[in-house]
Amino acid sequence: MDKNNYTLLTDFYEFTMANGFFNKGYRDKIAYFDMFFRRVPDDGGFAIMAGVQQLIEYLKNLSFTAEDIEYLRSRDMFSGAFLDYLANFKFTCDVWAVPEGTPIFPHEPIVVVRGPVVEAQFIETMILLTINHQSLIATKANRIVRAAEGRPVMEFGSRRAQGYNAAILGARAAYLGGCVGTACTVSDRDFGVPALGTMAHSWIQLFDSEYEAFKAYAEAYPDNCTLLIDTYNVLKSGIPNAIKVFDEVLKPLGKRPKGVRIDSGDITYLSKKCRKMLDDAGYPDCGIVASNSLDEYIIRDMIIQGAKIDSFGVGERLVTSKSAPVFGGVYKLAAVENDNGEVVPKIKISENVEKITTPGFKQVYRLYSRESSAAIADVITLHDEVIDDSKPYEIFDPEHTWKRKTVTDFYARPLLKPIFEKGECVYDQPSLEALREYCRMEIDGLWDEVKRFENPHTYYVDLSQKLWDMKYGLLGKYK
Amino acid sequence: MDKNNYTLLTDFYEFTMANGFFNKGYRDKIAYFDMFFRRVPDDGGFAIMAGVQQLIEYLKNLSFTAEDIEYLRSRDMFSGAFLDYLANFKFTCDVWAVPEGTPIFPHEPIVVVRGPVVEAQFIETMILLTINHQSLIATKANRIVRAAEGRPVMEFGSRRAQGYNAAILGARAAYLGGCVGTACTVSDRDFGVPALGTMAHSWIQLFDSEYEAFKAYAEAYPDNCTLLIDTYNVLKSGIPNAIKVFDEVLKPLGKRPKGVRIDSGDITYLSKKCRKMLDDAGYPDCGIVASNSLDEYIIRDMIIQGAKIDSFGVGERLVTSKSAPVFGGVYKLAAVENDNGEVVPKIKISENVEKITTPGFKQVYRLYSRESSAAIADVITLHDEVIDDSKPYEIFDPEHTWKRKTVTDFYARPLLKPIFEKGECVYDQPSLEALREYCRMEIDGLWDEVKRFENPHTYYVDLSQKLWDMKYGLLGKYK
Repeated sequence: MDKNNYTLLTDFYEFTMANGFFNKGYRDKIAYFDMFFRRVPDDGGFAIMAGVQQLIEYLKNLSFTAEDIEYLRSRDMFSGAFLDYLANFKFTCDVWAVPEGTPIFPHEPIVVVRGPVVEAQFIETMILLTINHQSLIATKANRIVRAAEGRPVMEFGSRRAQGYNAAILGARAAYLGGCVGTACTVSDRDFGVPALGTMAHSWIQLFDSEYEAFKAYAEAYPDNCTLLIDTYNVLKSGIPNAIKVFDEVLKPLGKRPKGVRIDSGDITYLSKKCRKMLDDAGYPDCGIVASNSLDEYIIRDMIIQGAKIDSFGVGERLVTSKSAPVFGGVYKLAAVENDNGEVVPKIKISENVEKITTPGFKQVYRLYSRESSAAIADVITLHDEVIDDSKPYEIFDPEHTWKRKTVTDFYARPLLKPIFEKGECVYDQPSLEALREYCRMEIDGLWDEVKRFENPHTYYVDLSQKLWDMKYGLLGKYK
Repeated sequence: MDKNNYTLLTDFYEFTMANGFFNKGYRDKIAYFDMFFRRVPDDGGFAIMAGVQQLIEYLKNLSFTAEDIEYLRSRDMFSGAFLDYLANFKFTCDVWAVPEGTPIFPHEPIVVVRGPVVEAQFIETMILLTINHQSLIATKANRIVRAAEGRPVMEFGSRRAQGYNAAILGARAAYLGGCVGTACTVSDRDFGVPALGTMAHSWIQLFDSEYEAFKAYAEAYPDNCTLLIDTYNVLKSGIPNAIKVFDEVLKPLGKRPKGVRIDSGDITYLSKKCRKMLDDAGYPDCGIVASNSLDEYIIRDMIIQGAKIDSFGVGERLVTSKSAPVFGGVYKLAAVENDNGEVVPKIKISENVEKITTPGFKQVYRLYSRESSAAIADVITLHDEVIDDSKPYEIFDPEHTWKRKTVTDFYARPLLKPIFEKGECVYDQPSLEALREYCRMEIDGLWDEVKRFENPHTYYVDLSQKLWDMKYGLLGKYK
């Protein structure tokens, strides 16, 4: 499989439906789909959008090889006309997406697709897979980065990732979410995520003694000397040997050590003792790196207890988002066009109120305070509605409509940007570096109450009056 | 990136160490590494080995492109001689692995690598990533399959998988672990995992009514007619419409319906009502499929409560192993050869007893009862030790050495098979189908006590007397 061609990475039902639509004469029927999610992982106050770049690559490369067609033919379920159509497939949809790095909230559309139903339905699996995975990791990484309160966090989890892309794209998403780098070399080569790394315990073990192992490393990397000090005993052996090697190898060269890493034991306690020993030996500038099954909760506790840690390496609990390993984005039909080209909204009813969809072709606006630049609320509107931010604007809770608030002195920014028009990519994807900085600034602009780990404030995601009228009108009609 | 070349998918420290070893003159120093794991996910009694096929592909394709070398050179940390060595890299290690589908237990080596330390160290990340991921999913899938007590389980999770390989290889691992198929089309094309699927809610919504949607589907797929019945109301609308369409479309063609699928609501309750309605309408052979955030615990409960479910579709909780999303395999130095070619065992000491490694070049034997073919215990031995199964054999607990048992009437089977000799693949990988059947039979041969979900019996993994003497001799020496 070509690295860029994931065309057949799709649920089989996308084919049975596509073939069914096609043979029913619905090939050119225009449908509108929304991707949205219902809950923030870890009960957080917001998630972070990620994966748009890979989604664009997938859509650009959508095409069926002769081998794909042969395989589908062998399943003996699809019409010859449909298979011919696939063999000559050309993607023609319009796609909008929220840019990577944007804080996103439940129930608002983050990807919108408009186009022939056969195509718009078919791309469901990969849209969800791509955005769900990277948004999950970017969101988790950002929690961990915030817990570290300015101390750098490195992504270290490749070996425990759920497959190869989970390592490679996980490192990308973690960087977008605020990590300073990764252990994953290929993510550096391909995405410019800074890769770093020094030694494993096996380096120490291979030599006849810890001292010799440290000495060999310092001689090999005098400019990048971070030593792993917990192979035998951190305080009795690791730190004394490290200091000895700093004195004997680095000092004569006029070099300073970069750090020591502790990967086991009671790291909070050990870090305080190490700090004192390093300071006393004349190495107050030698950093202490902590690793070993860390996450935002452990890091927060370490800091509260006064751990002397300068940076964190976080592995399995970041790269799998261990405490919440699923980002539950869904892709739902929102409207169809009738034969006159009119947009007919479609709603999915459910006994579970949370599962009722918001119908129609939509846009999302974020309202920011002109005074503080803080995000005030998001408003989901019909696609062609414009929020006039020169005038006061009334927002209201769509469930409890008597909860109303008039927003003044604000500006409104549409979140969904066009990424494909009639199948052609029209989006100028910013650099990962730029997106990372944008992400940082957007999160700076969220209220602290939304950023709490426990019981965060629920950020307002409201509907415009027009959209509310349409949704509740439809609900009334069906009920 | 070529699909077969994941050479640069490695932790950066593998390069810093490799360059360090190389420049230190250790290029040809022979080292032995073991991969093993310490805990079974979900506190289960055993895990299932998976991923060997992908590990073989990785090792066969290990090579550095000109682009890779350029990238590494740009990092300005590696010697020219080392980069030249990489540009002409040839893998020359010996590798042993436990075959896929084998039940595996904590602390026993499941992959063993012998070879020049630069090479043997370098492949750590991908060995762990590959085996950890697929073993995690195969193990989880098998738990879910066992909970379903013979009812087929389909893997449905691509859209929530952690990246593309997590979907594709997750489906492969799930099939190995006992699922009957997947929704993931490409896993069918590439691995022969049977892919199936019918419709999403959007199929129903696109038509003017549920009835019309069902009718169109039955007409398109009269031989494969499974209808999704929960878009509006299962009992008031879904089932009555399904029966109407079975009567009107399938009956005249002499076809029988395949099933109905329920994807929301109280599925246990709904399934009983649906069963009765289908039976009363003359469709006792129409299956009922359940999906919606299922796992082994929910399935077990549904069955206990008498749900009338014929098969299960399991998504996000399988493909991410949601309740335990990390398989914690590690890769540790076990021995080196000195200049005379003697094997010098290496041990990693730790205050945490569980983290002390078992040194030496090793093999694992599984002892089976000749009478029942049940697995009795595993014994880790030195690599060239042979367990003579024509005579009684005494096993003992390595921690509590007074706990002893003499095994009689047994046969001993070595678990670690050669897969590479001097860098050449020597392993004849069985078909996925054959491995799946082997897995089923091996699990049949485990005691029920080991297969419990809660508080399973700890299966014996003992050391041979020779290995025990060596390990505890070394421990005594270091302490």
